[in-house]
Amino acid sequence: MAQAGLFITFEGSEGCGKSTQIRRLADFLLSLKREVVVLREPGGTPIGESIRNLLQYDESAGAMTPEAELLLFAASRAQLVREIIRPALARGAVVLCDRFLDSTTVYQGVARALDASEVRVINEFAVGETLPDLTFLLDLDAAEGRRRASARKGPSDRMEQENESFYEAVRQGYLKLVAEHSGRFALIDASLDEESVELSIKNVLMERFQIQGGVHGIH
Amino acid sequence: MAQAGLFITFEGSEGCGKSTQIRRLADFLLSLKREVVVLREPGGTPIGESIRNLLQYDESAGAMTPEAELLLFAASRAQLVREIIRPALARGAVVLCDRFLDSTTVYQGVARALDASEVRVINEFAVGETLPDLTFLLDLDAAEGRRRASARKGPSDRMEQENESFYEAVRQGYLKLVAEHSGRFALIDASLDEESVELSIKNVLMERFQIQGGVHGIH
Repeated sequence: MAQAGLFITFEGSEGCGKSTQIRRLADFLLSLKREVVVLREPGGTPIGESIRNLLQYDESAGAMTPEAELLLFAASRAQLVREIIRPALARGAVVLCDRFLDSTTVYQGVARALDASEVRVINEFAVGETLPDLTFLLDLDAAEGRRRASARKGPSDRMEQENESFYEAVRQGYLKLVAEHSGRFALIDASLDEESVELSIKNVLMERFQIQGGVHGIH
Repeated sequence: MAQAGLFITFEGSEGCGKSTQIRRLADFLLSLKREVVVLREPGGTPIGESIRNLLQYDESAGAMTPEAELLLFAASRAQLVREIIRPALARGAVVLCDRFLDSTTVYQGVARALDASEVRVINEFAVGETLPDLTFLLDLDAAEGRRRASARKGPSDRMEQENESFYEAVRQGYLKLVAEHSGRFALIDASLDEESVELSIKNVLMERFQIQGGVHGIH
């Protein structure tokens, strides 16, 4: 019998370790012979990657309005859902997505002070019925998140250039979402070492879903 | 005393003569010593022009979902309204825009069969309180519109490649909007010669607003 698809998203501030944990979870799921699709937002499709470039590196982006920013994130997401995520779930794959609609709610809604009900309508339009089965919030103290993000090499994007009070607003926005959607979210302490965070994530996954098989090193 | 700004949009199918009539009206208004700002949608800002390229020439655009398309048009418009249109109106300029939110309502709402109430919410989010003072619909028979559009040189975009039934759906969508918003719209017969269309447009403008001055050749 075919396995059911599973849609898992990872949320949290820059520096919380999403990319690392997604790689680790993908390896684990591949070891269980599951098809794994790893995606990032914004991006994940040719159209979405063009939008990502526009959001992050366009020299005019400093003057981008919050409204245009929100709509561009939503456009990338609408494309990703229909071009990639729905077909993957239909095949029975596990889809791991680095940021999804909760990022929009938090970053645009809370931190940019857009109207919450309008943000919600646009989010719903973009994703339709495709909501995550499970969302990991990798929670991190604002000062630590900022420290980790600043220590990174390479080009930084606009979001990463924000100050510590911005990180704190983002964190509080996420914690509010967890309280409102506790059935979908799993709150993970991201201040621990990578192996401990990985273990927490695997434990939640196995508690909530029929994920089992060659489960090494977690009992 | 400073003159009030005026926001005028032009709508209609491809081939209806919007660009020509905007040029003619701009010349007329300049002769009256008005500041005139001519814009096109999607586009009109650096961010908007990037979005325009993505919508029209990206090789992956053939697979673009209707939802992503709608959100990209809205993103371009949100930027245009705040970066260009509102400051221009505040200076007392006349803003002439080649397509605006009615194009979205008609092309995405009617012809692509997206949910009308969702399209309206996204339109409203994009423009805020900035609605046109006057919208000219350059109305043209579907067969004639398609004939004119096909006769054009240069690269054609996706919209222009649609067939005659698409043109007819667009026309009917526009006529429905005129019926619903008769106070804002002026219906212009675009099958007439350019000079006659120009005369109709100037007459409407002078009837509705305090536009007067060196009005040559129209009486």
